[in-house]
Amino acid sequence: MKNQQILLARRPHGAVVEDDFRMVESEVPPAGEGQLLTRVRWLSLDPYMRGRMDDAKSYARPQPLDEVMIGGTVAEVVESKNPRFKPGDFVVGMAGWQQYQVTDGAGLRKVDASLIPLSAYLGPVGMPGVTAWYGLTQIGKPKQGETLVVSAAAGAVGSVVGQLAKLLGCRAVGVAGGKAKCDLVTGELGFDACVDYKAESFRADFKAAVPKGIDVVFENVGGAVLDASLARMNAFGRIALCGLVAGYTGQPIPIQNSRSLLVNRLLLQGFIVAEHMELWPQALAELGQHVAAKRIRYRETIAEGLASAPRAFIGMLEGKNVGKQLVKLV
Amino acid sequence: MKNQQILLARRPHGAVVEDDFRMVESEVPPAGEGQLLTRVRWLSLDPYMRGRMDDAKSYARPQPLDEVMIGGTVAEVVESKNPRFKPGDFVVGMAGWQQYQVTDGAGLRKVDASLIPLSAYLGPVGMPGVTAWYGLTQIGKPKQGETLVVSAAAGAVGSVVGQLAKLLGCRAVGVAGGKAKCDLVTGELGFDACVDYKAESFRADFKAAVPKGIDVVFENVGGAVLDASLARMNAFGRIALCGLVAGYTGQPIPIQNSRSLLVNRLLLQGFIVAEHMELWPQALAELGQHVAAKRIRYRETIAEGLASAPRAFIGMLEGKNVGKQLVKLV
Repeated sequence: MKNQQILLARRPHGAVVEDDFRMVESEVPPAGEGQLLTRVRWLSLDPYMRGRMDDAKSYARPQPLDEVMIGGTVAEVVESKNPRFKPGDFVVGMAGWQQYQVTDGAGLRKVDASLIPLSAYLGPVGMPGVTAWYGLTQIGKPKQGETLVVSAAAGAVGSVVGQLAKLLGCRAVGVAGGKAKCDLVTGELGFDACVDYKAESFRADFKAAVPKGIDVVFENVGGAVLDASLARMNAFGRIALCGLVAGYTGQPIPIQNSRSLLVNRLLLQGFIVAEHMELWPQALAELGQHVAAKRIRYRETIAEGLASAPRAFIGMLEGKNVGKQLVKLV
Repeated sequence: MKNQQILLARRPHGAVVEDDFRMVESEVPPAGEGQLLTRVRWLSLDPYMRGRMDDAKSYARPQPLDEVMIGGTVAEVVESKNPRFKPGDFVVGMAGWQQYQVTDGAGLRKVDASLIPLSAYLGPVGMPGVTAWYGLTQIGKPKQGETLVVSAAAGAVGSVVGQLAKLLGCRAVGVAGGKAKCDLVTGELGFDACVDYKAESFRADFKAAVPKGIDVVFENVGGAVLDASLARMNAFGRIALCGLVAGYTGQPIPIQNSRSLLVNRLLLQGFIVAEHMELWPQALAELGQHVAAKRIRYRETIAEGLASAPRAFIGMLEGKNVGKQLVKLV
């Protein structure tokens, strides 16, 4: 049986291009004692992968060259010599950019497809959802009536942040690129406002969207977007620093308004959700209930077939996706 | 009886100049029932005063024009119609830049001059000491063996930060301007290292001073000095943001290395020590014991006479003082 795999062929120079990846085909090895064979159904494409492609010092080791690209997946168990799993089980794991994986099952989480669509386990009921939940509830700690701003608001994380904030009684303001995304954010996703950072009137629009100032920022972008928030922070505001996509291709992303951090006695905390596994069960339980009850809605952008992954990934880094970027393999 | 007073004559344009102040002479009013008359012995000059001179939105209301400049003082009670005080008592308060004050005694704290020199109540056993204690113990939370970096290390706050960190078993590294200050910091004050930010070899010197990276930063300066620390932070480092003197005359002080905040999952917290009065008694008790036992040492730069205050204040903003800048009135 053939297994298509996508490897990191070389480290990007600035913007990622398709030639940074290489598709190979290998034989699927047989599952040994205690192992299982899974077939990937859904592959998650996420901004953190861009960081791994570089060889820079970071919180995680770089993606090794000539190895299968890292990635979260939902897979179906095809064959099992492991008593914890049986064929037909669905498992969330990190199979990466490939069609099949033989694994001992470590780190796999069985999921139920009856109440929640499988792909949601890579979105609002998966890592992006827990990221939103952690940054908002553990760092942002919003109180009823406060104002929250989240950047990349139409994305997999940002869309959950704003909806959770609404459920907590906050004013939720999104920042997103373009009218289509902003319409989604204030329409289907139910935010109170959304500001288009690509619009010429961004500064004025932003100011109008936060008439009582900002108490909590969930930051995915950095650079000028973060500075816009800093200029309108209230005293004792909290900033959960989740990502800096504005700098993913090496652009400088200074924080110009450092004075606001002092003058407003702000708390800023960078975080990586994978370091807080003890809270995942609670977060996933809450998120699963919200999604099943449609209190949290989500959008997906779906690319078809493993071969489409590089282009879809590049598109996501350029902001072309709406909501969660996925690759559907089967 | 005549009372010399220094008023804020106008708001500074950029750097403070002596003409921004005006000396006046007025009659000392008689102390009414419940009031007391105090004579200022020591006036404290502190960086926060520079912020108050501007009309910008900040955590405190601006210093009003044509009123006595704000300032911490140690004064002697001359006359009292208030049962809580008697002539000869020494009191710490906020009499400001003047020779005499008639007050109802609210906010005054009686201090004992027998174990600790009076002026120390404006330094290590006063607001600067509590600032150091609060930022270090409540935000920085250093553990034994960790590395601390403090900027403006020869100043009233920074000198206490490093000595407290040493008492907690840390490696204490100072950043200061010039060899004389660095010699004081590593000599009399007992820091492990001090880096001269004015030296051409600053970057290399700084790197060599923190061979195991940085766990805690106590930041008084901002700008390039903060960026130097950000480049060497360890994972889960803490930054207590106390001041940004690099930007006091309106210079831009961007944080260039915002990536470090995310990649190293840093905590940054701005703070104002006056908002944490509930911890002052504990802090002052600990600091008083350390100073009385000479476990915490301190330097003072003393200007003589009220009329010298504007020039001494400007010198402090330019970094000309070593340790605590005081004006001795009597």
